[in-house]
Amino acid sequence: MTPRARQAIECAEVIVGYDTYLDLIQDLLPGKDTIGTGMMQEIDRCQAAVEQAMSGKQVAVISSGDPGVYGMAGLVLELVSKYPATVQPEVNVVPGISAVSAAAAVLGAPLMHDFAVISLSDLLTPWEVIEKRIEMAAAGDFVIAIYNPKSIRRTSQIETVRRVALKHRGPDTPVGIVHHATRAKEDMTLSTLDNFTNEHIDMFSLVLIGNSQTYVADGKMVTPRGYRL
Amino acid sequence: MTPRARQAIECAEVIVGYDTYLDLIQDLLPGKDTIGTGMMQEIDRCQAAVEQAMSGKQVAVISSGDPGVYGMAGLVLELVSKYPATVQPEVNVVPGISAVSAAAAVLGAPLMHDFAVISLSDLLTPWEVIEKRIEMAAAGDFVIAIYNPKSIRRTSQIETVRRVALKHRGPDTPVGIVHHATRAKEDMTLSTLDNFTNEHIDMFSLVLIGNSQTYVADGKMVTPRGYRL
Repeated sequence: MTPRARQAIECAEVIVGYDTYLDLIQDLLPGKDTIGTGMMQEIDRCQAAVEQAMSGKQVAVISSGDPGVYGMAGLVLELVSKYPATVQPEVNVVPGISAVSAAAAVLGAPLMHDFAVISLSDLLTPWEVIEKRIEMAAAGDFVIAIYNPKSIRRTSQIETVRRVALKHRGPDTPVGIVHHATRAKEDMTLSTLDNFTNEHIDMFSLVLIGNSQTYVADGKMVTPRGYRL
Repeated sequence: MTPRARQAIECAEVIVGYDTYLDLIQDLLPGKDTIGTGMMQEIDRCQAAVEQAMSGKQVAVISSGDPGVYGMAGLVLELVSKYPATVQPEVNVVPGISAVSAAAAVLGAPLMHDFAVISLSDLLTPWEVIEKRIEMAAAGDFVIAIYNPKSIRRTSQIETVRRVALKHRGPDTPVGIVHHATRAKEDMTLSTLDNFTNEHIDMFSLVLIGNSQTYVADGKMVTPRGYRL
């Protein structure tokens, strides 16, 4: 957590967030009101935050990773803009360490070159749009970061990623899988494009697929920038 | 700067970095050795850092933004892996707030959906590779983040981005330009795909091109995640 994020929480009278994330910052909560909800209740949660802010309170909506990458920043801004400009509360987005940055650091240096970030969650996005993006990212030789790669009910999409990427890259292309980056339970697995879907992947995993130049040396996944060394 | 990054610098005996970045952390430098070099001397700088570490010193190589995104993490790992595993120093990559995350926060919430990050610098990458990636990112309706969009000598590439993107997206697609995100000189401009290359863009700019759903409301650039509100 950056000093700026900590300060935003310390200055707030009301803290709004998914229950699990509120638990992670318990030391910052005494003396504050909290509004916690379960997963999948993002709209209720952000609407409650906006209403608190409209009533004159200083409110912090908390997120894991970066609230600006598939996070709550957009939903808060969308809900705020439904009110007339004259009564809208001011919104400041405080950037954080994104899951893709955290995962990359655990693996080594896979993001030294151009990369694409794709979420496989098709709750809010038609699968055809996601599949087209996988195809374009693979064809463009982007390093590919996959958010939400798999859940209990959603298991076939990551196999599609493997199949599409294999059309454009070799079976030995390095693939890194990171769980809970920067947390106590952090762990990582290095695999290959051919085999990675046999590894443990769940909704807490971030999957990073190397580009055609990515290699593994001494246990680190590196995409060379192109320096002649 | 995260507490973890600050701690890594505080624990180091030798700090290595581009002179401008050393200036930004002067308060952390007393009592430490420093190795500063100008721009474009990344290899010398990182090689010096590796040699200091091999001599038994605790060394911190500093970067702006995230050292794991087009940063020094890869070069350090590449140089270390040239030595036998038995004598290699341990390398830890400390993730930071990437320029794309910082710029997105300034603009609003443009990265609520899949995005591609592309550097236009062709010093180390053939232009054909970069142009193919622009084409694929535009065709895949990714939000596109452009690093190194323009320098004094390199001015035509950003015009190519505009031309290629206009084949796939409307002329009114929002484009955000951010300078010096999170620093005192921070500023941002909201423009459109048709017009953005008429705005001031230099090597300190980060350019964010919206996808087909991105809009501007109340001065904020938002890519909706797809919630029905």
